[in-house]
Amino acid sequence: MAVTATSVADTCAAAKRAARVLARASTATKDAALGATARLLEEREAEILDANAADLADERAAGLSEALRDRLALDAGRVAAMAAGVRAVAALEDPVGEELERKTLASGLDLQKVRVPLGVIAVVYEARPNVTVDCAALTIKSGNAIVLRGSSYAERSNAALAAVVREALAEAGLPQDAVALLAGGGREGLAELATQEGLVDLLIPRGGEGLKAALKDVATVPVMYAAAGNCHVYVHAEADPEMARRIALNAKTQRPGVCNAAETLLVDAAIAERFLPAALGDLRGAGVELVGDERVRALAGGAEVGAAEAEDWDSEFLALKMAVAVVDSIEGAVEHVNRHGTGHSEAIVTTSEEAAEEFAAGVDAAAVYVNASTRFTDGFEYGMGAEIGNSTQKLHARGPIGMRELTTFKYVARGNGQIRE
Amino acid sequence: MAVTATSVADTCAAAKRAARVLARASTATKDAALGATARLLEEREAEILDANAADLADERAAGLSEALRDRLALDAGRVAAMAAGVRAVAALEDPVGEELERKTLASGLDLQKVRVPLGVIAVVYEARPNVTVDCAALTIKSGNAIVLRGSSYAERSNAALAAVVREALAEAGLPQDAVALLAGGGREGLAELATQEGLVDLLIPRGGEGLKAALKDVATVPVMYAAAGNCHVYVHAEADPEMARRIALNAKTQRPGVCNAAETLLVDAAIAERFLPAALGDLRGAGVELVGDERVRALAGGAEVGAAEAEDWDSEFLALKMAVAVVDSIEGAVEHVNRHGTGHSEAIVTTSEEAAEEFAAGVDAAAVYVNASTRFTDGFEYGMGAEIGNSTQKLHARGPIGMRELTTFKYVARGNGQIRE
Repeated sequence: MAVTATSVADTCAAAKRAARVLARASTATKDAALGATARLLEEREAEILDANAADLADERAAGLSEALRDRLALDAGRVAAMAAGVRAVAALEDPVGEELERKTLASGLDLQKVRVPLGVIAVVYEARPNVTVDCAALTIKSGNAIVLRGSSYAERSNAALAAVVREALAEAGLPQDAVALLAGGGREGLAELATQEGLVDLLIPRGGEGLKAALKDVATVPVMYAAAGNCHVYVHAEADPEMARRIALNAKTQRPGVCNAAETLLVDAAIAERFLPAALGDLRGAGVELVGDERVRALAGGAEVGAAEAEDWDSEFLALKMAVAVVDSIEGAVEHVNRHGTGHSEAIVTTSEEAAEEFAAGVDAAAVYVNASTRFTDGFEYGMGAEIGNSTQKLHARGPIGMRELTTFKYVARGNGQIRE
Repeated sequence: MAVTATSVADTCAAAKRAARVLARASTATKDAALGATARLLEEREAEILDANAADLADERAAGLSEALRDRLALDAGRVAAMAAGVRAVAALEDPVGEELERKTLASGLDLQKVRVPLGVIAVVYEARPNVTVDCAALTIKSGNAIVLRGSSYAERSNAALAAVVREALAEAGLPQDAVALLAGGGREGLAELATQEGLVDLLIPRGGEGLKAALKDVATVPVMYAAAGNCHVYVHAEADPEMARRIALNAKTQRPGVCNAAETLLVDAAIAERFLPAALGDLRGAGVELVGDERVRALAGGAEVGAAEAEDWDSEFLALKMAVAVVDSIEGAVEHVNRHGTGHSEAIVTTSEEAAEEFAAGVDAAAVYVNASTRFTDGFEYGMGAEIGNSTQKLHARGPIGMRELTTFKYVARGNGQIRE
């Protein structure tokens, strides 16, 4: 398949028509399309890897960092993982048609609140070609159409993968326009996509702050901004120090470049002297650059800790760097998190149930962890099969955006001639 | 109480602090505040009516239409109705703390998804002072704070009512800043309120298209646009003609100035000859100006029907005017509704269950009625006690915005040291 040559508006209009068919497709039909997708991914492995090799050899990929090249690269294992992911989505419950509520109103109307697909989902993403398949699988199963806009340097890989999904849709008797891939088109193309009011029901940007800022300026369609994560680990006075060390280390270092990695470590004054030297030693040992407030620096033991600047408390480092502060109480920790956090993922380590509940209730975030790493905020970990993004907004959906988050509802009221008096 | 003299930002910041207390207030405490509000409304009736009389006598109210003066005017009955409304909200179930989901993840984490308040709700409204009390009651019970911005010509009435609610909050031991009333401040004040990112969690405009357009230009906080309603009644081939006449007449004329009133009547070709003369006669008899397509005009019998212009199909008349078209099939009706409708409320009249289900599934709207008037889309009719607005957006909430729609959720994951491998 060539990257869609028609205009953005035409592509979105075709997706809207397809969405009306997908919305009413049976679970069996949608699962058949997903099954065919998984099978075709395996059958077309060679073609897909050829397309990917061409992308990697292209001059557009020459300037990429090693990390980005790795994210772009496919191999047999990654293709197999995509197929397995599609089968996992097929195995999940179909959210469409779920009756959310039913009651008889005073007027005698039988009021049903039923889950329906949103319609057309647009996803703007970078680098990883597997996003093409993951997102298409989630939208197909949830009865939506999808308009994908990947990176130009992944163009051939994305096209090969979208072609597989479109062939699978046709095999299942579903409209191919339910999965469309747009050519990049630069900032202008992005603006065109973000202003398709009435055609695009939700736009999900998966990318950095530059992409989000560009969208905030122009978007008129609903946008769900994927989260920036300034996440905290708070070590309470009654924490198990060994557990706290493991959690802080994991939250910071297991994958520092992602949004649910921790950026700040808050340590209760009552445990600071006992906890800090070893914990900071762990972090330094893992190559983490540390900055701290005065109390932290005084209690650092042998660990090297720079002086924290005011902006460090508001920074999503996305790197092996961590800010560390001592707080005087759980109230102080909650206040620090609510002032500096981005509402993503926050953790407390404590053996006190009371402290855990106070932190969980007081912190305003999508996810709060008690005695666990912040790294678990993820659609796959949450049993959603996959995620199309992650939200720190409060409206509609918070946290991982899975199939259910790609739906809305409709009221259907059945009567026998009711009129309003 | 004087209208809040502090800045918009200060008022919103104080509301945010109060919201954190409200979020954790018990149901009993919130109900005590609502009970006190109802009691104080009754006790302060004379004061409230004096303030309202001063508003009505003010030169700012001199230019108002008779309809707007009527909406502004209070009397003993309207004050009593407000008190009854507050007691009705108190009697509803508290949405906060509801466990929406709970499961044990593969990692062993105990994941709970729990309903929490949104935080600070801002409401911009016109004329009717009872909105002050209705909205405050809904936000208090749902654990939110509210920042109200009413019309300048209702300033004294709104201030008297807000003072009652604030006194009731204090009586229940809750922070008064949970209910704040802003002075108008014109377009500049509106823009200031609409850009309080991090303080205002949701802004709900209750007003005309001018207000919405003004907000779309400036708002950076989440806005839920109250609906424009271009609603349809479709009379299916197998409709009971008498029922269809009653429903069409009610949907158009029972209260033509509201968003759930019908603007267009669609009549299936198979029933048009039998149905149209009498139905159009009813509407003309009720003073409705009719415009129609050629087939309608040919079958109108004695009723006067003008020629419909293209824009009539997209118009929310909000008046005793209706556009009428003949459609060839249920598919044609669904297509017309999806092309011209605003996703608010749509009705089909039919004795065929199959046709009803096809229409309900095919129409993309917040509410679909089978054999009932579109006029039922309303928080009170839906058993939500009241509504703070009505949404035709698909994200977060569709249809009446009640207490539950003023909440979001939070994931709380409890572990015993889980880290991500």
